Amino acid sequence: MSVIKIKKPPSIVSGAAVVGEKEHAGPIGEKFDLHDKTGAFGMDTWEKAESEMQRLAVNTAMSKAKLCADDIDVIFAGDLLNQCVGSTYGILGFRTAYIGIFGACSTFTEGLLVSSMLTGTGYFSRCAVVTSSHFCTAERQFRFPVEYGGQRPPTSQWTVTGAGAVILSSGGDGPFVTDVLPGIPVDKGITDANNMGAAMAPAAIDTFTRYFIETGTKPSDYDLILTGDLGLQGHGIFCDFMKNAGYDMTKNYNDCGLLIFGLKTQDAHSGGSGCGCAASVFSSLILGKLKARELNNILFAATGALMNSDSIKQGNSIPGIAHLVHISNKKE
Amino acid sequence: MSVIKIKKPPSIVSGAAVVGEKEHAGPIGEKFDLHDKTGAFGMDTWEKAESEMQRLAVNTAMSKAKLCADDIDVIFAGDLLNQCVGSTYGILGFRTAYIGIFGACSTFTEGLLVSSMLTGTGYFSRCAVVTSSHFCTAERQFRFPVEYGGQRPPTSQWTVTGAGAVILSSGGDGPFVTDVLPGIPVDKGITDANNMGAAMAPAAIDTFTRYFIETGTKPSDYDLILTGDLGLQGHGIFCDFMKNAGYDMTKNYNDCGLLIFGLKTQDAHSGGSGCGCAASVFSSLILGKLKARELNNILFAATGALMNSDSIKQGNSIPGIAHLVHISNKKE
Repeated sequence: MSVIKIKKPPSIVSGAAVVGEKEHAGPIGEKFDLHDKTGAFGMDTWEKAESEMQRLAVNTAMSKAKLCADDIDVIFAGDLLNQCVGSTYGILGFRTAYIGIFGACSTFTEGLLVSSMLTGTGYFSRCAVVTSSHFCTAERQFRFPVEYGGQRPPTSQWTVTGAGAVILSSGGDGPFVTDVLPGIPVDKGITDANNMGAAMAPAAIDTFTRYFIETGTKPSDYDLILTGDLGLQGHGIFCDFMKNAGYDMTKNYNDCGLLIFGLKTQDAHSGGSGCGCAASVFSSLILGKLKARELNNILFAATGALMNSDSIKQGNSIPGIAHLVHISNKKE
Repeated sequence: MSVIKIKKPPSIVSGAAVVGEKEHAGPIGEKFDLHDKTGAFGMDTWEKAESEMQRLAVNTAMSKAKLCADDIDVIFAGDLLNQCVGSTYGILGFRTAYIGIFGACSTFTEGLLVSSMLTGTGYFSRCAVVTSSHFCTAERQFRFPVEYGGQRPPTSQWTVTGAGAVILSSGGDGPFVTDVLPGIPVDKGITDANNMGAAMAPAAIDTFTRYFIETGTKPSDYDLILTGDLGLQGHGIFCDFMKNAGYDMTKNYNDCGLLIFGLKTQDAHSGGSGCGCAASVFSSLILGKLKARELNNILFAATGALMNSDSIKQGNSIPGIAHLVHISNKKE
């Protein structure tokens, strides 16, 4: 698969992020649109709270762009809950066409990738992309109920309680999604479900090296290179292997999982993770800087670990995937 | 959302279906490409068997079209397993770009819909769509382990052990995907997880009536109207409501869930279901008839029930969704 140039690059006209208390207390907490101290968002289960975050994120993003649900052709949505029910109940009330997507924690850039191709060919005038995760739904689904108090190894990441949504439009004055590169699943044999960074980093390395080779560009050609949630372990592995391949990632590379939490001050171990991590960081901090022209030209690839709790028990290793989007204020 | 005309309708150049013993013993059993009497496909877990069916289906479809994995730009894949791992491990070995999709049992037509839009705009030359389900993985994930011997009510459906794959190409001489209509989730308050037909039928009614109204066509304009897996209950509800809306479905309407099993002779209760039902029936029987010009103009909408086992326990009702594709031997 080659880099895909979007024919008529769509604009990201607005974005919104909704998070929990820990995310709001973190280093970029003030950038998020909405937060709830309890993480429950007025709901009686964590799963319903996750759906409510999706609803609020889409609604806030639409509101910022002065749009209502009738103005949106289709919503691309995904999450980590079994059978993606976070998305089902989150977007149900909008009565909008729905394309369900799944790429584990890479889902947000998978959504940006597919939606920008379809908006950039005139099929859709406007669409929304939303993904979410919730610490308490992820803990009980993938690990243990929070009340159990299981110990976490240092390589483990903290699932972000958050949802991020953006609205893409065939009109608008940027930032534009100008080209994209779909990810190829990469399996390097990692079997430790508490070390997702190591499972996902090889996919990020694969996608970024393919992108740089094919486009003839290098990291310093961009204002920012951003990954989704490699965390401390994955960040290190990514930088090391990219350096060996001849790419210097020390100047302008960052990871949403490292941006969202104070690792030492917030007991977040290796950093943030989850479908809501890249989504909420991009839809607030990063999109804000793109709109303010503090950033003008970025590469963004969220990474996903393609596994479930049974596949681990059955002895499967954990393949990773990284979908890349190039976002620029120039409509190239 | 309006009906979307595909700009350069792609061809479905080949298809393949891989099934278990019960499906092979059914009324259309001879149409499937491969089957395994044990349902294990040489694997040591049912989940791995499901992945193997996906691999075999894609491989057989590629082989029929004289293609290898390097000729395929991207694989759209999905299944019912938690976090879609049936697809992850099924397509991993092809080293091809992967777009994960989720629409419960509607996933196959969701994949046809998205892939034909993207192949029909020149972004992709060729892509594959594959979805699967397995009776034993679905039983233990959604209901009880098979060994438990839980009783099934008459409205329940039998999850198909099967995978279906098709290859779409920007070239080729048909059948063509000429236009599509994405589904809108519809929730009519059904809470019985053993009556998926009732949960999904309203979505099929919504999608088909929107399609007929907007295109000004009626059921008799087509050779076949096909739904994914409404089963006996859903089929009845669908026909009744469509009749009330002025559409006669008694002449040329069928459902993959009714085609695949002998309901009375095979103890299949309300019929087949699962991501593999519509996929395997379409990729064998229906595609064969389209290629042989026995069918020339069909509407096909697989339907999905958007729930998981926790959402039911938490008191949520079950929304349905139906994605529609219009497939014709005329490149309109």
